[in-house]
Order: sequence, then structure tokens, then C-alpha cells
Amino acid sequence: MDITQMAQDFTRAVAEEREDDYKAYWADDIVSLEPGDGDMSRCEGREALEQKHAWWNANAEVHSSDTAGPFVFGDQFAVRYDMDVTMEGERNQMSEVGLYTVREGKIAEERFMYGTEGGVS
Amino acid sequence: MDITQMAQDFTRAVAEEREDDYKAYWADDIVSLEPGDGDMSRCEGREALEQKHAWWNANAEVHSSDTAGPFVFGDQFAVRYDMDVTMEGERNQMSEVGLYTVREGKIAEERFMYGTEGGVS
Repeated sequence: MDITQMAQDFTRAVAEEREDDYKAYWADDIVSLEPGDGDMSRCEGREALEQKHAWWNANAEVHSSDTAGPFVFGDQFAVRYDMDVTMEGERNQMSEVGLYTVREGKIAEERFMYGTEGGVS
Repeated sequence: MDITQMAQDFTRAVAEEREDDYKAYWADDIVSLEPGDGDMSRCEGREALEQKHAWWNANAEVHSSDTAGPFVFGDQFAVRYDMDVTMEGERNQMSEVGLYTVREGKIAEERFMYGTEGGVS
């Protein structure tokens, strides 16, 4: 399966919240990166990612979300995410780009790039 | 200047089509990458990029465009682009992500990741 087909399947599964389907594309040693140096800034391995997802599901109330992509280049693809989410009592419109690196048909790394106050929207 | 401030300045200049302002952020040896292996797949250096821009301006009629970002991670930032453009007589809605790598306050590399037919939008 080429990266475009794989990236489309993954992105559609994410958009449709089919967890088992998109998790099937995780490499066993997948690395998940967030900016900064918080607890969640680097999660390594499937079990750590499962915990990260559980943390997100327990702490974020997602009112609506919009997913677009994939945008492919070489062994990477990007997905655009926009969501309306309440965390710790504060409701925000979050906008981000997920950048995924593929190795042997699986996602070896995901990193989340966030919109910044003062940017263009 | 930290990368967030620099990325915001660059993105705003692109959105407002202030060419001199965004070109000031190009490193002299900037590399500009497109998918595939066409003539424009790799341009290296300021002069080559000027020619690429001139080619685009001569060949693309942009009816409208929308720019959002930047989305920052480490020494990289992403910008989302959407445009309604006619090239070679064909009008299309193009959607892409520009991924920029920064070195010493300048853009050392830009690569353009394109949306794919069959993706989620």
C-alpha cells in the first residue's frame, strides 16, 4: 500500500472516530510528540499512546471537530485538525497540524503543531 | 527573535502578499521542495526561488486564497493554504500545508504537502 492510500485510510478513520482502525496503523514503537516539556510531550510505544488517549478522553470535552487531509510529501503526511473543546472548564477553538512519519506502512512518529495567538486565521 | 514571532511575521506577510517582507526571511541557500520529480521539485538558493515565484505568477491566476497559521513545533512551523486557482485553463480548489524549517532565524527549507483526491475535507 502506498503512503497516499494508507494516509487516506488513517485520516478517514480518525475523522470517523474509528479507533481500532486508526490504531492499526500505529507502529509498535510509535513516538508521539507535543511541543513543550510537559508529561505528554513525548510518549513512546503503543501502551503509552493508549494512556495518552485515555487521558485526553477523560479530560477533554470535544463539542465538535473538523479533520482535513492527508497532505502527503515523501514519507510524511500532514492532517489539519480544528476542534471546539472544553478542558479544565475553559472552552477553546483549537487549531493544529498533525505531522506523521511513515515507516514500512506504519506510523513511526506523530507530532502535533499548534496554532499560536497572534497568528493568521 | 524566537521562532513563533518570526513565523507569525512571515505568515502575515505571505497572507498580505508583502513579498519583500516574507522574502527577507529566506536564507540565502533556502531549499524549496515540491512532491514528485518535476522541474520545480527542488529549487535551491534565492535566485532559483525568485524564478519559481516568477513562474507561478506567470502561470497561475489566483481568484482567492486563504492562509492560516503558523503552527509551530521546535525548529519547524506549518502554514495552511487554500486557494482557488486557474492553471493551464483548469480551475481548481487547491489545499496544501507548507512545512518550514528555520535555522538562525531564517527559512532554510520549505516543502509543500498537497491534499489528495479521496482524502477528507
